[in-house]
Amino acid sequence: MSDYNAPIEDMRFVLRELVDMDEISALPGYEEATPDLVDAVLEEAGRLAKDVLAPLNHSGDREGATFENGVVRTPRGFPEAYTQYVDGGWGSLPFDPAFGGQGLPWTVATAVQEMWNAANLSFALAPLLTQGAVELLQTHGTAAQKAAYLPHMISGRWSGTMNLTEPQAGSDVGALKARAVKHGDHYRITGQKVYITWGEHDCAENIVHMVLARTPDAPAGTRGISLFIVPKFLLKDDGTPGQRNDLRCVSIEHKLGINGSPTAVMAYGDSDGAIGYLIGDENRGMECMFTMMNNARLSVGVQGLAIGERAYQQARAFAQERVQGRAMDSRDGPAVPIVQHPDVRRMLMTMKAGNEAMRALAYLGAAELDRAKRAPDPATRAAAQARVDLLTPIIKSWLTDCGCENASLGVQIHGGMGFIEETGAAQHYRDARILPIYEGTNGIQAIDLLARKLLRDKGAAARDLLNEMQADLDAMAIPEAASMSEAMAALVAATDWMLETGPQNPRLAAAGATPYLRLFATVAGGWLMVRGAAAAHRLLGAETVSPNRPFLEAKIQTAHFYLNNILPRAPGDAAIVIRGGDSTLALDEALL
Amino acid sequence: MSDYNAPIEDMRFVLRELVDMDEISALPGYEEATPDLVDAVLEEAGRLAKDVLAPLNHSGDREGATFENGVVRTPRGFPEAYTQYVDGGWGSLPFDPAFGGQGLPWTVATAVQEMWNAANLSFALAPLLTQGAVELLQTHGTAAQKAAYLPHMISGRWSGTMNLTEPQAGSDVGALKARAVKHGDHYRITGQKVYITWGEHDCAENIVHMVLARTPDAPAGTRGISLFIVPKFLLKDDGTPGQRNDLRCVSIEHKLGINGSPTAVMAYGDSDGAIGYLIGDENRGMECMFTMMNNARLSVGVQGLAIGERAYQQARAFAQERVQGRAMDSRDGPAVPIVQHPDVRRMLMTMKAGNEAMRALAYLGAAELDRAKRAPDPATRAAAQARVDLLTPIIKSWLTDCGCENASLGVQIHGGMGFIEETGAAQHYRDARILPIYEGTNGIQAIDLLARKLLRDKGAAARDLLNEMQADLDAMAIPEAASMSEAMAALVAATDWMLETGPQNPRLAAAGATPYLRLFATVAGGWLMVRGAAAAHRLLGAETVSPNRPFLEAKIQTAHFYLNNILPRAPGDAAIVIRGGDSTLALDEALL
Repeated sequence: MSDYNAPIEDMRFVLRELVDMDEISALPGYEEATPDLVDAVLEEAGRLAKDVLAPLNHSGDREGATFENGVVRTPRGFPEAYTQYVDGGWGSLPFDPAFGGQGLPWTVATAVQEMWNAANLSFALAPLLTQGAVELLQTHGTAAQKAAYLPHMISGRWSGTMNLTEPQAGSDVGALKARAVKHGDHYRITGQKVYITWGEHDCAENIVHMVLARTPDAPAGTRGISLFIVPKFLLKDDGTPGQRNDLRCVSIEHKLGINGSPTAVMAYGDSDGAIGYLIGDENRGMECMFTMMNNARLSVGVQGLAIGERAYQQARAFAQERVQGRAMDSRDGPAVPIVQHPDVRRMLMTMKAGNEAMRALAYLGAAELDRAKRAPDPATRAAAQARVDLLTPIIKSWLTDCGCENASLGVQIHGGMGFIEETGAAQHYRDARILPIYEGTNGIQAIDLLARKLLRDKGAAARDLLNEMQADLDAMAIPEAASMSEAMAALVAATDWMLETGPQNPRLAAAGATPYLRLFATVAGGWLMVRGAAAAHRLLGAETVSPNRPFLEAKIQTAHFYLNNILPRAPGDAAIVIRGGDSTLALDEALL
Repeated sequence: MSDYNAPIEDMRFVLRELVDMDEISALPGYEEATPDLVDAVLEEAGRLAKDVLAPLNHSGDREGATFENGVVRTPRGFPEAYTQYVDGGWGSLPFDPAFGGQGLPWTVATAVQEMWNAANLSFALAPLLTQGAVELLQTHGTAAQKAAYLPHMISGRWSGTMNLTEPQAGSDVGALKARAVKHGDHYRITGQKVYITWGEHDCAENIVHMVLARTPDAPAGTRGISLFIVPKFLLKDDGTPGQRNDLRCVSIEHKLGINGSPTAVMAYGDSDGAIGYLIGDENRGMECMFTMMNNARLSVGVQGLAIGERAYQQARAFAQERVQGRAMDSRDGPAVPIVQHPDVRRMLMTMKAGNEAMRALAYLGAAELDRAKRAPDPATRAAAQARVDLLTPIIKSWLTDCGCENASLGVQIHGGMGFIEETGAAQHYRDARILPIYEGTNGIQAIDLLARKLLRDKGAAARDLLNEMQADLDAMAIPEAASMSEAMAALVAATDWMLETGPQNPRLAAAGATPYLRLFATVAGGWLMVRGAAAAHRLLGAETVSPNRPFLEAKIQTAHFYLNNILPRAPGDAAIVIRGGDSTLALDEALL
């Protein structure tokens, strides 16, 4: 099995040069996030990821989570690793110090999150879901709810889950049927939920389920959904876990991947109804849940980046070791490592460039989130929030699609060995495949980008970003910036077309939503790669010779690769957006 | 689990309208392949595929082939299904009647082969490998070898395998070490072979291994490899299987997919050396093996098409049944099947259009093979063989890549259920992933296209095809033909660039080999879709109203989809070919 080494140098480069970490650290409340502290956090997290979590990745997949007599066991080593994670305070990184958090920027937490997910995607889902639940409680919980739950969830001693899906209610959350009946200060919850990630397990002292359900007189659809805290163990008067609540894990799923992560079918209220506590107002549950979902969507995007990086590191190591065939220009020479073959190089560069663009985009999104939360000026906060809203579906979809592609390239580079499970490359391919599905399928993300993020404000947020990108490129006096012009023009044209078409013909616009998202992401990635190249040029030209000169030169070469091997797809995607929709919708569905 | 219904209407359409089955049937030796007979064969094969093979696909995956005490057992039902396959004479379709074959065209056999692979990819590998071995013996075996082996292999009572790979010799076949020492009329073979598909199993009465090995004084590399027949059971004087040969299955692999198909590690000559019989001349084994490999490469392409079709049928059924969400233009209306959502439609149309283009290209390749084998005129045969040689790497790579993409789209359409193994969509995703790897990785295919098929004849075969495509498009007075012009120009430009660059800078050309292959395939697929649309227009305009009017209208709509949603990627790929290579190769490998 392959090692994982956190790509700290590139992480630092993105933080310092592309998302302006100095500015983030200057935001009120983030003053402690000095460069030294951030470096120390990254180094320390990298060690835990490499030494503790990564070695459990393959064994966790082989063993899988198990379900027996109602008890879920995570794979060997997971509970101990979870304890180490909690003891290290890693769950508390970005949260409110008032509840035991460390108050670090999301930007930093995102880099750290990349490491957990790259090291062990199945394991990292536990903190990922907990983090979403914490965000939700922080934003919408009462003071008493916060006091009761947040310190334990922020520490990680209690984990969190998200309970939306029911068998008949997947993407259509509004179709859910779980019921909640008021009993004094609490509600009694009954119903079945499926696909509950880490819904039951043996790592935490309590599991705090965030459950969507309907009160008896609630309106139909998403406007009649309320949100409840439903803890596995009810809290005693002293706040510690006590009596078992009326909920249970019915089974866990047999999945394609992330086998170390238990995906539970949960039954609420087999007896008297599970006791739940309302969060926010009745019938406003979806709004509250969106807090969690938006957070989780960015995190799932980071998972795509993470699996892309892990697959890359494994494929690179293999390609440097595996000797097979001769160099094209030396047919009688010695056999060479396959990394020297141009087509293998193409695959590795595709992975590397994709990972670097993904990382830049993910951290940029996190930085905007930090600004949206902490900037002193309300207008800045609002603009940053609009940017986060715009970027969230792009980050979720593009990073997860690229993560799958990278995992597939990782298999391909291994050749026949890639198809053998012992090698480990196949696991990344299987694990990655959930990412475009959960937290809103990538198709749902594309519609979200189109309908809520582009059309609703008549393109204001999108045009803001496009203008900023263009101004940025204009200001960079390097040839790489000029090579963006065709792709930028394609994105602008597709955006114009969407803004014109969307209001008149929503179905036609929707038919192009996915290629539009891909186009937007590809161009945004190009912009950030060019910014990276510009920063590298600047640092290389600085008076003090940089100690990481080869790294900076590689940044420039990798940007060139992106511009000439990935970005050229942009005009084609614009053409598909503009010309493709009619024929997508034309066929009578009986003739499919 | 989903049904499989062979897409006989589209198969017939391709055979009749796109590959000119009438002309194929008129070739010497193929006279029996009348339209009625071909229809009957397709119908009958479709029934076996649907009723016998398809129902064993999922159970075969779950159970897997097993290895215990040296014995390999295929999953429940496989041996019985294999017997039915043999008893039905299905293995003998395209082979020489002198040895019990039915002498049908490869074009027909290819359509039938699509069915076996769509129904059950793991099962279909047994006949696929046997077919390759039969081709090899037919072409290179002595009269005695043919008489001894062919009738039994053509019937399928004995199966065949291909033994190239060794742990240190994968893509670099020339690095193999298995030894063959002459003993009178036979050789003694020793060595280990890996990744031997159906290398050991319980379905056939004998297993005829085609084994590459080196004689003691053989030159290094591929010029020192000889090919041997090494049967599992040596033949008695009466020609029936007798004594066990000195070979054994050491283990079978634990794989990502095709779990019903045993992938064996084979040991030859643990005791005195396995008895093997030379095929062709010493040191000419690679040339002989290429007969088998080229055959197998076309077949593997068909596997890509097959898994794409199977995944499509399953996803289409799900999308038509799964009710989730409301129509975009009727937010207060009833919930609708997800097939009505534009993004789901986009995915289904991508699969459908891809499958139809793949089918047309695969059958076209088979028809050229028939011409190459049977055309009375040597010049026609030579031209057809050049066309087959050109198309083989394109068919192998593009169809297998598209097969993987379709299987992935199939998972995506299923949403969360796609990630659950019980649904079956995930199996197609896992099974498909071997296809871009075996029988020469798709990277190897791209280099083959570039170096052997394009550069060696200075572009003659490629220009022939491009000219034919252009003339064909010019002759079709339909708007669809005109919309090919940008993509055709892109392919011509990339071809010119390759022809100019390849001889001067092989590494730079090789860096673009994969996007060049993709470009070639995408444009060729577009050409065939346009030809299909032209045929549909013609049939719709005919005096007798066609009974399959909706099918023909769907052909036209699907061509439009292809032209507007898939073909627009072509110019981007040409740009990548022409501009991408420098940056692919630029980075010092230590900086990857």
